[in-house]
Amino acid sequence: MTGHTGAVRCVTFSPDGQLVASTGDDATVRFWSPVAGRPLGKPLTGHHGPVTGVSFAPNGGLLSTTGTDRTLRLWPHPAI
Amino acid sequence: MTGHTGAVRCVTFSPDGQLVASTGDDATVRFWSPVAGRPLGKPLTGHHGPVTGVSFAPNGGLLSTTGTDRTLRLWPHPAI
Amino acid sequence: MTGHTGAVRCVTFSPDGQLVASTGDDATVRFWSPVAGRPLGKPLTGHHGPVTGVSFAPNGGLLSTTGTDRTLRLWPHPAI
Amino acid sequence: MTGHTGAVRCVTFSPDGQLVASTGDDATVRFWSPVAGRPLGKPLTGHHGPVTGVSFAPNGGLLSTTGTDRTLRLWPHPAI
Repeated sequence: MTGHTGAVRCVTFSPDGQLVASTGDDATVRFWSPVAGRPLGKPLTGHHGPVTGVSFAPNGGLLSTTGTDRTLRLWPHPAI
Repeated sequence: MTGHTGAVRCVTFSPDGQLVASTGDDATVRFWSPVAGRPLGKPLTGHHGPVTGVSFAPNGGLLSTTGTDRTLRLWPHPAI
Repeated sequence: MTGHTGAVRCVTFSPDGQLVASTGDDATVRFWSPVAGRPLGKPLTGHHGPVTGVSFAPNGGLLSTTGTDRTLRLWPHPAI
Repeated sequence: MTGHTGAVRCVTFSPDGQLVASTGDDATVRFWSPVAGRPLGKPLTGHHGPVTGVSFAPNGGLLSTTGTDRTLRLWPHPAI
């Protein structure tokens, strides 16, 4: 599956298995449907620089990411 | 959420979902409230150099981190 | 266990514990039997460049990997 | 906790929470007691070069590590 415009560094399934989140050097966070094999929604922007880490909340409602831009960001699980 | 003074490399939710821990090149470990969207307590210091890895104990009572300073450190889950 | 022709960067057990997946700089994803101590099937090819991240779906049916080639790929759990 | 003779790159709690495993640039894998705050057994040697990844089997009986030496290795959970 393509979309990232730079190296992809991290990937994690959501706890419910309904989606995959990826992060990369293009400063975006992206959600994907593993069943449909396509992107879910638009790329999430906000980080200024590579996104270095990713973790889902155990209940799956939130995703947290970190970056070389010195920030930690929270993203809601997309409605699917 | 801001606070780290260098690139943030790792992020993980606690098993209870009540907080997020992040580690970075500024040698600190930081806890954050994902609900309130703000830091929890003060930055944890002790590492001498970038913090490279992080893992919560399955029961969530302890966090372990590793660093380029050749050490492994343990931190208690903060009272919240 | 040997097979990768470059540095191995990531390793993860499947949720059922029946196999281990590894990814590396040789652009391959490989499955291994931890009990038998040998490879399971052939190396999975498709990535063009180092494979940087790996995550199993919670139900273990799929593995997702990311690479410096800007792609995210999905692989089925091998029949064993 | 000290012992590694190079940067420590990875850390993970065992599923039973009874120990922590760490890996590093010194080519060793080490187990630690989070309660006692001390090493468990001797450093595990075998990798030739930095140990880049680590994963516990879900049942905790085995630990798998990967390295720049192109190998994947399996280690038993130490008796404690």
